[in-house]
Amino acid sequence: MNREHLLAAVRATLKHSDAAAFARIFDQVQCADLAEALTDLEPEQLALLLCWLAPARRARLFEHLPEFQQGLLLPVLHPPAIADMFKALPSDEQADLYNRLDTEAQSRLLPALAQDDRAGLLRLAAYPEGSAGSLTASDYAAVNAGMTATEALAALRSSAPDKETIYVIYVLDPEGHLQGTLSLRELVLAQPQARIADLMRPHPVFVRAEWPARQAAELIRRHSLLALPVINGGERMIGIVTVDDAMTLEKEEDATQLTRFGGVAAMQGDDLDLRTSPFHQLFQVRAFWLVILTCFGILTSTYIAAQTEMLEQVIILAAFIAPIIDTGGNTGSQAATLVIRSMALGDFRLRWRDMWFVIRRELPVALALGLAIAVLESILAYFSKGVQGEVLLVVGLAMLLCTVLGSLIGALLPFAARKMGTDPATLSAPLITSIMDLVGVIIYFGLAYAFLGDMLAPAPLGQ
Amino acid sequence: MNREHLLAAVRATLKHSDAAAFARIFDQVQCADLAEALTDLEPEQLALLLCWLAPARRARLFEHLPEFQQGLLLPVLHPPAIADMFKALPSDEQADLYNRLDTEAQSRLLPALAQDDRAGLLRLAAYPEGSAGSLTASDYAAVNAGMTATEALAALRSSAPDKETIYVIYVLDPEGHLQGTLSLRELVLAQPQARIADLMRPHPVFVRAEWPARQAAELIRRHSLLALPVINGGERMIGIVTVDDAMTLEKEEDATQLTRFGGVAAMQGDDLDLRTSPFHQLFQVRAFWLVILTCFGILTSTYIAAQTEMLEQVIILAAFIAPIIDTGGNTGSQAATLVIRSMALGDFRLRWRDMWFVIRRELPVALALGLAIAVLESILAYFSKGVQGEVLLVVGLAMLLCTVLGSLIGALLPFAARKMGTDPATLSAPLITSIMDLVGVIIYFGLAYAFLGDMLAPAPLGQ
Repeated sequence: MNREHLLAAVRATLKHSDAAAFARIFDQVQCADLAEALTDLEPEQLALLLCWLAPARRARLFEHLPEFQQGLLLPVLHPPAIADMFKALPSDEQADLYNRLDTEAQSRLLPALAQDDRAGLLRLAAYPEGSAGSLTASDYAAVNAGMTATEALAALRSSAPDKETIYVIYVLDPEGHLQGTLSLRELVLAQPQARIADLMRPHPVFVRAEWPARQAAELIRRHSLLALPVINGGERMIGIVTVDDAMTLEKEEDATQLTRFGGVAAMQGDDLDLRTSPFHQLFQVRAFWLVILTCFGILTSTYIAAQTEMLEQVIILAAFIAPIIDTGGNTGSQAATLVIRSMALGDFRLRWRDMWFVIRRELPVALALGLAIAVLESILAYFSKGVQGEVLLVVGLAMLLCTVLGSLIGALLPFAARKMGTDPATLSAPLITSIMDLVGVIIYFGLAYAFLGDMLAPAPLGQ
Repeated sequence: MNREHLLAAVRATLKHSDAAAFARIFDQVQCADLAEALTDLEPEQLALLLCWLAPARRARLFEHLPEFQQGLLLPVLHPPAIADMFKALPSDEQADLYNRLDTEAQSRLLPALAQDDRAGLLRLAAYPEGSAGSLTASDYAAVNAGMTATEALAALRSSAPDKETIYVIYVLDPEGHLQGTLSLRELVLAQPQARIADLMRPHPVFVRAEWPARQAAELIRRHSLLALPVINGGERMIGIVTVDDAMTLEKEEDATQLTRFGGVAAMQGDDLDLRTSPFHQLFQVRAFWLVILTCFGILTSTYIAAQTEMLEQVIILAAFIAPIIDTGGNTGSQAATLVIRSMALGDFRLRWRDMWFVIRRELPVALALGLAIAVLESILAYFSKGVQGEVLLVVGLAMLLCTVLGSLIGALLPFAARKMGTDPATLSAPLITSIMDLVGVIIYFGLAYAFLGDMLAPAPLGQ
């Protein structure tokens, strides 16, 4: 059933107040598809549909809704409906949702939970957004090293319904320290009397709760894990991050990186999203960056304005302002892109050795590109505008220097950003272009004065 | 053990030809970490280490090496070592590796495989790179609908060692058509006499072998799957795509997107990679784009050069060329970024409705930004350079028009790219900037002529 048909079918159930029909639709389609079809409904309609579902299904559908829509729903759903649904959510979603409720809703929710659950929730909810702890689910499969395979399987079978995943099994000592892992497959294939201690893999990959969430995602991807154990300050295991959360996080992080590099980094709050961000946010974030870029442009134009004398003498110089400053921005953007990409894929860190490696790779390429572009521009200048002699030299040399310097600056800016603790992609392509504009005109007119300065009127004698 | 220590330990085993010591290191560290530590070794050294390992471990280590290093190894490894390792690789890696061998190596390899395996390999290897078929592993867990839970578990237990994953179980009819799926967890928790037909989920999410690989990855992420069934033209299931391959693919695709948007799209072959791409490739790809961008710049400079008369009259106009054309590129880059991001997250397709939605969202924001920037620039122009009157009007209006048009063009270009079958990100930030340069100067001087044309010397009478 495609999206339009699905939405139409759901609207029909709303019209006839047919809860059973909606439940049937729920059973027949994928949860993610249903959630997507419902994005255009009003919050009140969506709340009604959710309340038609039993709490476990309500939780599943709610989980799949985009965050902004969950936010619109919370004030509209009745507190008892939220509480029932809450208990059916996985623990990492519970912590997430809890943190988004207002304090009144939070205080209404806590008494509805069993004491252990309440304590567990508050512990998870305490981890800051963006940390591995905030992605952690506390319901994981644990056994102890002294069990046999049969005992372990029996223990898993009884506790399995409540677990996020039973495919990765964690071996803990009585204090809760992680000793090893094994997979359900290995357990199923093992001899019945084999001891867990012999079957498990020691020294498992793990993440600390305070480390960034993206590091957890990277570890999951690098080691092809289904789940990654999370360790707290007391070296105890507190939960797991699952591969689906890791995959979603990496997708969102990459989208954020692109957003920043294109010049729309949101310095606080959510990324700009064309579909869901309100007008004022779209305006504010873009205006912030445009103002910065425009001010940079003012510096450049002020500098050019001061070169009026030179321009009046050699008006043709004005024609080449654009291509020369653009070249610096173009090569700078290319170089920065390659470095940012390598950083994102984990190839570079912040060591001097990495910066030196980048310069060593970048310099020959930049020189070759600079020569090629300088020659191209000079040929075109000669044939299309008849530019020759010293003016041609100025144009060609300026192209060469702008290309080489643009590449080097573009390649090193991401390191500077990382040093300052910012995502390198925040130094966006437009910002690199603006910086190179200023550098470019200084080089251009510097060369113009060096080679053409004798064309300017000398100061009158006696003054 | 960190990377340097690990590499030192491995070099020690090489120095003393201590195969057993290397095998011990292999057992103690994560495969991905070991593979990363070995990236700096010479191919001959790496080949020796691989041959010290039994075929199954050799295959695991080989799997984790980056593709370029695998390529360097293949000519150096002895054919029998390759053949042994090959048989131990998962089927999707086999197909991949087979396609990268030269025809001589391929013909040496095939006889070493059992007939069924050979046929299966050739079928998988036939799928083009970038298709879901090329990511497919043919070793998946299948049961039939008439089995009981106990029978199914027994069948899985016996075939499990050869399966990519047994956590998702596929229910096939005798012709190989996919009827449903269930998870190992559901099977383990089911009543022993329950029939598979009652336990399974019908209408599973699937991908067709000829669809793009990124679509398989997107489905896996959207529906939080561990594996996705792949269907061929005859509606038969041929294999699965697993979540780890999906996650790796999405990471690579996102890196490619960033690379393109920064102006270094590789029109053929692999993405540029700062660490591994050879000099000539780094030069060629970047030169290709720089030449295109430079030629665009030539158009712009030719146009400006033709405005010599106007510039001589109102030399101050030259000072604002840079900020005005930059603004179009900046807002264009911002707008394009937001649209590309939304497309990548699956929010927009190529429908007229989507384009209209984008224009409706973009236009008010662009107008507001245009007004803000035009006012800012006018104020700065007045106070810093004393620009006033009609010149100020030209500057302000040009800023306004460039901002608005830049946003609209930037927002619609990704749709044009998709229409032409190209990745929208290939219309990079530098390219958008270059296009808006030309548009910007045409608007700027157009306005200059409209408002200041009367300042130009009239044609002499009588001629």
